[in-house]
Amino acid sequence: RYRDLAWRRCQEIITLTCIAVLLGLVAGSIQIVTETLVNWKSGHCARNWLLNKSFCCASVTSTGRGPLSRRDELQCIEGGTWIDRTNPFLDFSLFLLLSVLFATASTLMVQYLAPMATGSGISEIKVWVSGFKYKDEFLNLTTLLVKSTALPLAISSGLSVGKEGPSVHYATCCGFVVTNLLLKRGTRFAEQAEYLIASAAGGVAIAFGAPIGGVLFALEEISTSSNFNLSILWKCYYVALGAVATLQYMDPFRNGKIVMFEVTYDNQWKFQEIPIFLILGAFGGAYGLLISAWNVRFVNFRKTYLQDWRTQEVIFLASITALVSYFNEFLRLDMAESMGILFHECVAGDGESLRTHRICQLDTQTHAGSFLQLLAALLIATVVRSLLIVVSYGCSVPAGIFVPSMAVGATFGRAISLLVEKWITGPAVITPGTYAFLGAAATLSGITNLTLTVVVIMVELTGAFSYIIPLMIAVAVTHLIYSFFSSKGGIADQMIIFNGFPLMENTKQDIDCLEGCSAEDIMTCRVVSVPETLPLFQLKAIVSDADHLKQLLVIDSETHACLGYVNTSILSSELTHAQDSQLPKSTPVNFIESKDWQWENETEAINLCHLVNQSPMSVSARTPLRLLHQIFYKLGCKLAVVESQGSVQGLITKKDFLEFQRLKHRQLHGPLYSFDL
Amino acid sequence: RYRDLAWRRCQEIITLTCIAVLLGLVAGSIQIVTETLVNWKSGHCARNWLLNKSFCCASVTSTGRGPLSRRDELQCIEGGTWIDRTNPFLDFSLFLLLSVLFATASTLMVQYLAPMATGSGISEIKVWVSGFKYKDEFLNLTTLLVKSTALPLAISSGLSVGKEGPSVHYATCCGFVVTNLLLKRGTRFAEQAEYLIASAAGGVAIAFGAPIGGVLFALEEISTSSNFNLSILWKCYYVALGAVATLQYMDPFRNGKIVMFEVTYDNQWKFQEIPIFLILGAFGGAYGLLISAWNVRFVNFRKTYLQDWRTQEVIFLASITALVSYFNEFLRLDMAESMGILFHECVAGDGESLRTHRICQLDTQTHAGSFLQLLAALLIATVVRSLLIVVSYGCSVPAGIFVPSMAVGATFGRAISLLVEKWITGPAVITPGTYAFLGAAATLSGITNLTLTVVVIMVELTGAFSYIIPLMIAVAVTHLIYSFFSSKGGIADQMIIFNGFPLMENTKQDIDCLEGCSAEDIMTCRVVSVPETLPLFQLKAIVSDADHLKQLLVIDSETHACLGYVNTSILSSELTHAQDSQLPKSTPVNFIESKDWQWENETEAINLCHLVNQSPMSVSARTPLRLLHQIFYKLGCKLAVVESQGSVQGLITKKDFLEFQRLKHRQLHGPLYSFDL
Repeated sequence: RYRDLAWRRCQEIITLTCIAVLLGLVAGSIQIVTETLVNWKSGHCARNWLLNKSFCCASVTSTGRGPLSRRDELQCIEGGTWIDRTNPFLDFSLFLLLSVLFATASTLMVQYLAPMATGSGISEIKVWVSGFKYKDEFLNLTTLLVKSTALPLAISSGLSVGKEGPSVHYATCCGFVVTNLLLKRGTRFAEQAEYLIASAAGGVAIAFGAPIGGVLFALEEISTSSNFNLSILWKCYYVALGAVATLQYMDPFRNGKIVMFEVTYDNQWKFQEIPIFLILGAFGGAYGLLISAWNVRFVNFRKTYLQDWRTQEVIFLASITALVSYFNEFLRLDMAESMGILFHECVAGDGESLRTHRICQLDTQTHAGSFLQLLAALLIATVVRSLLIVVSYGCSVPAGIFVPSMAVGATFGRAISLLVEKWITGPAVITPGTYAFLGAAATLSGITNLTLTVVVIMVELTGAFSYIIPLMIAVAVTHLIYSFFSSKGGIADQMIIFNGFPLMENTKQDIDCLEGCSAEDIMTCRVVSVPETLPLFQLKAIVSDADHLKQLLVIDSETHACLGYVNTSILSSELTHAQDSQLPKSTPVNFIESKDWQWENETEAINLCHLVNQSPMSVSARTPLRLLHQIFYKLGCKLAVVESQGSVQGLITKKDFLEFQRLKHRQLHGPLYSFDL
Repeated sequence: RYRDLAWRRCQEIITLTCIAVLLGLVAGSIQIVTETLVNWKSGHCARNWLLNKSFCCASVTSTGRGPLSRRDELQCIEGGTWIDRTNPFLDFSLFLLLSVLFATASTLMVQYLAPMATGSGISEIKVWVSGFKYKDEFLNLTTLLVKSTALPLAISSGLSVGKEGPSVHYATCCGFVVTNLLLKRGTRFAEQAEYLIASAAGGVAIAFGAPIGGVLFALEEISTSSNFNLSILWKCYYVALGAVATLQYMDPFRNGKIVMFEVTYDNQWKFQEIPIFLILGAFGGAYGLLISAWNVRFVNFRKTYLQDWRTQEVIFLASITALVSYFNEFLRLDMAESMGILFHECVAGDGESLRTHRICQLDTQTHAGSFLQLLAALLIATVVRSLLIVVSYGCSVPAGIFVPSMAVGATFGRAISLLVEKWITGPAVITPGTYAFLGAAATLSGITNLTLTVVVIMVELTGAFSYIIPLMIAVAVTHLIYSFFSSKGGIADQMIIFNGFPLMENTKQDIDCLEGCSAEDIMTCRVVSVPETLPLFQLKAIVSDADHLKQLLVIDSETHACLGYVNTSILSSELTHAQDSQLPKSTPVNFIESKDWQWENETEAINLCHLVNQSPMSVSARTPLRLLHQIFYKLGCKLAVVESQGSVQGLITKKDFLEFQRLKHRQLHGPLYSFDL
C-alpha cells in the first residue's frame, strides 16, 4: 500500500518534470529563432550571417562567456561585428519583404499543416479543461510542432500579435503529448486536465519569465474555479518552476536574464500621483471595452466575408503593418524592445545604455518642436497599434493579444508622462517610465479582465517592487470600470461565447434567467435503457438502434431504478471485441456485479461492470434549474438522471442544459452582440 | 434595474473600503505600540520616555520629515537622543521584569475579557468560512479590541510567538464588525463569509506588508477550494490593497517602508548551489513534521494537566524565555530585527549600516575561536527557539507561529552558510544572507504546508526578486518531503482535527473510507415536518415539541414530497413576534406561495415563505456516500433530504456526515494521534 503510494508520487513527479523540461527547451528555441528573425530585419552578423545579435556579440566580448551587458552590445555594433544596414532604400525594401515573407510562411504552415494552430487557443483550452473534450488534433504533436514553428515567424513579421496566448497553447500540447506517452493507461479525463492546466501555467511562466504569474494565470483564467484545488496548484507550481529553471539554464538571451526588460526604479512614488494612476487605470478599462467589442465585430466580418481569402488577408495585413510601422519609431521596433525603452527610468548621464532614447533627453532640453513630435509619435503609435490589434487578432497565424495590448498602454502612459512633466510638475519630479509601466498593466488587465495575475506578471517582468501599490491601484480601477460596463469577461471568454463553445459560468445573470424552470422542463425523454443483465444479441440490437445517443442507462429490471450509465461508443467498441472472440449469441452480459450470481457459470458471461458509471447524479423532476446549475457547475457531472417516484423519467446532459441556458439568456437579455440576429 | 445594480456595487465598494481602512489603522497602531514596548526593554528616549526609537529619532534628523535611514538612527543613538541602558545588572533585571509584566498583562486580558482571543484563530476562521458558524463572540468587537491590545504585549514580552496568525484573527473581526454594521439586513451567511475571507487576506497583507501574499494566503489556506471564486478573489485583492495603502500612508516605522526588512542581493546565484538549496528545503520539511507533531502532543498535555494553571504557565514561559534569550544574541533581539541581520548581504566596508553585525566580519578574519562561537550561537538559537515554539504556541496569549518558524529557519540557514564558506567555497563566493532567507522560507512552508503563498510572501517581504528560482526550489523540496510523510496538512489543519472542528476535506483517504456505504446508512429518521399551510396554534405546538431539532421540513400535504426546510430557531423567534401582535390563534401560516390562494383573505395570514429554503438537495436512499461527500463539499449544502419513491425518508446534515466520516476514518486507519485513544 505504501509502496503503491510512493510509486504514484514518483510517476507524477517524473511526468511533471518531463513536461517542464520539454517546455523550457521548446521555449528557449523559439526565443532564439524569434530574435534571429527579428534581427535579420535590421542587419546581419559579420562573422556568420545566420547568427542573431546576442549570439554574434557573445563571442567577441572581453569577458568571454559571462553575461552580456548593454555596453558590450554597443561595443559590438561599433566594433563592426554586428552590421546594421545603412542604405535607407535597401533597408526599407528588405524590411517590407522579410515581413511579408515571414507572415506568408507562417499562415501557409498553419493553414495546410495544422488548422488548429491558428489564433491564441486560450478559449479552447479553457473549455477543454472544464470537461468538454475538443478534437484530439487540437493538442497533438503536429499542432505542437506547427505552432512552435509558425509562432516565431508570425512575431518577427511585425504583425501586432503576441507570443503569450500561443505559448499557452503549445505548452498545453506538450502536456498532452507527454501525459499520453507516460501515463497512457488508467488516466481519467479529469486527471489529465490537471496536467494540462499545469502545462498552461508553465506556458505563461516561460512567455513572461514569470513563474508565479503563470500559476496565477492558470488559477484565474484557465481553470474555472469549480475544479481548482490544491493538487492542481502544486502541479502548476512545479511545472512553472521547472520550465523557467530550464529556460534560465539555456540562457537564450545570453545575458543571464529571463525577463524581457528589467527595470529598477530608484525614486519612490508620491501620494499626489494617485489621480494620474486613476487616469491610466481608466484608460485600461476603456481600451478593454472598445478593443474587445470591435475585435469580436471584426471576427464576425472575417467569418462572413474573408473565409476564402485567409492567406491574402495575412499578406495584406503584414504589408500594411510593415508600411505603417516603418515610419514610427515606437511601432517599428520589436514590441518587447520598445517597451524596454518606454519603461526605462531616465537617469542623467547614462548615455551609454542601450535603452537610452532621445525621449530621455527631453527632460532637460525642452524644445517645443521636438516635444510635440515625440508626443505625436507616442499618440499615433497608441492609436495605430490599437487598430492593428483589432484587425490582426484572430487572423490565420498563431496570435496572442497580451503583449500588443501592453505596448498600447505603454505608449499611452509615456505620452501622459510627457504631458505631466511639461505642465504639472516640471522635469525630474516624477519617474516617466513608471507611467508607461502602469499603462501597460492597465491595458493588459482591461483586455484579459484579470487582476491579480496582471499585477504579479508585471512585477515579475520588471522587478519594480516598490511600485506595487500604484500598480494595484491602476489595475483595480481598470477592473472596476470594465466590470461595471460589461459582464462578458475578458477576450477569451468573449471568444468562447462568440464561437458557441460550451462553458458554464457562475454569474448571477446566468443563474437568474433559470428562475421558475425545473428539471422536467428541459429533460429529454428519449432514453434507451438496458437491464442489469441480458444476452449478448439483445444488447447488440439495442446498441445498434441507439447509435445516435451518447449514453445508455442501466435500469434495475424489478424496481426500474437507475443503476448507472454506459457510454455508447465505448460499449460498441467493447462489443466489437467480443464479436471477434466468437462467443455464442446468448452469452449473458452483466453490467452490475451481484452476489447472487453463481460463480461457476461466470466464466461464460461478459462482465462490463467497469464501463458503468455507477453513481449517476439523480434529481427529481421538480428540482429547480438553479440547483441543477450548481450540480453541473460544481460537481462536474456530465449528465443527470431525472427520477420521479423511484423510476427514470428522463435525462439531462450538461450540454443540453447549457444550450437551454443560453437560449433563455438570449430571450431575456437580447442577443449578446448586435450583429448576432 | 440598472440603478439597483449600481447601488449594490457601490455598497460593496464602500464596505470593502471601510474594512480596509479600519484594518490599516488598527495594524498601524499595533505596530507603533509593539515597537515602543520592545524598545523600552533596551533603553529610553531622552526627550520623552514614552516615545519609541523611530519616533524619538524622527524629529532630530537633519532631513526633517523625510524617511529615516539607518545612518540617521545610528547618529541618533550616538547623539544621545536615544539612550541605551549600560548598567548590565539593571539592564538584565529590567529586561526580565518587563518581559514577565507584558506577558502577564496579555494573558490576564485574554482570560478575563475575551477568552476567544487566545491563540492564532486561523483554524476557527477556516471552519467558519467553510459554512459552520462558530460562536458570535469569536468575531465581535470585544474580541477585536482585546486581541489588538493583547497582541503587542504578547510579542514584546519576548515569547516565541508571532503576530501573523492573530493579525488574521483581528482582521476578520474587523470584517465581521463592519459588515454587521453596514450590510445588516439581507446578507446571507455565504455572502458575509466572502467579506471575512477578504478581511483575512488583508490581515496577512498588513502583517507582512505583502498585499499579493495576503490574497494568496486567503486562497490557499483560508478558503477551501470549494467556495473560491473570482468574486472572492477581487474582494481579497481590494481589501489587501486598501489596507496596505493605509498602512503605508500612516508610515508606522517612520522610514517610508512597510516591509520589515528589505534586502537587495547583488550577486546572482549559481547552479552549483542547488544541492545546498535542497538541504535547506529538506530541513524545512523535517522541521514542519517534528514541530507540528510535538506541538499537538504538548497541546494535549496542556489540555489534560495545565487547564487550571494558564496564567502561571504564561508567566513561567515568559521568565524562561527571557532568561534563556538574554544570553544568546540572536534570541534576545526582536525576531524581525534578528532576521534583518541574518538576511543582510555582507558588503565590504558598510560598517555604518545598522544591520552590519560581527557575523559579517567573519568572512575576512577567519579566527577559529570566534567562528565556532558564532556557529554555536546560531545552532543553539535554532534548537532553543524550536523548543520554545513547541511549548509557546497555544498558550493563553494571542500567538502566531509564522515568524518564530521563519526565525528558526534563518538561524539554521545562516549556520549552513558559515559551514559552506569555511569548508567548500571560501569567503566571498556565496551570499550568506540568502541561505538564511531560503531557510526561513523552508521552515515557514514546512509549518504551514503552503507553497505559492510562502514564495510570494518571502519575495514581497524582502524584495529579493533575483532569488525566486532558488526560493521556489527550496519550498518545493519542503513540500515534497512534508507531504510524503504526512497527510495531515499544515498546523492549522492539525489543530482543526485535534479540536474536532467540523471541516470537510477532499483528500483521497477521506473519500476512500466511505466506500460501500450509502445514504440510508447514516440518515436520521427523526424528522419533524409541517404541511405547507396550517393554523398558528398547531405550528406553535409543533415548534415547541421540536425544540431540539435544527430544521423542520415543509411537506406537501398531498404528495408527501419535500418542499423545503425552515430553521427552527429563526421560526421560533418569528413566532414570538407574531404572538406580540396578538393575532388570533387560528390565523393560517403559509410556508409556500401559491397561486390558488384568494388574495382577499391574505391580509390575515402569516406569510413565512421567506424563511423557507425552497431548494433543498434531495437524494435517494441508495446514493453512495462518495457522491454525497461531493454534494456537501462542493455545493455547500447544509443538509440533504433523503427521499424514496417520492416521499421523505430521512435527513442527513453535513455535521452528521462529517462525524460519520471521522469515525470511519478512525476505524480504518487508526487514531490520528497516538495519545488519542
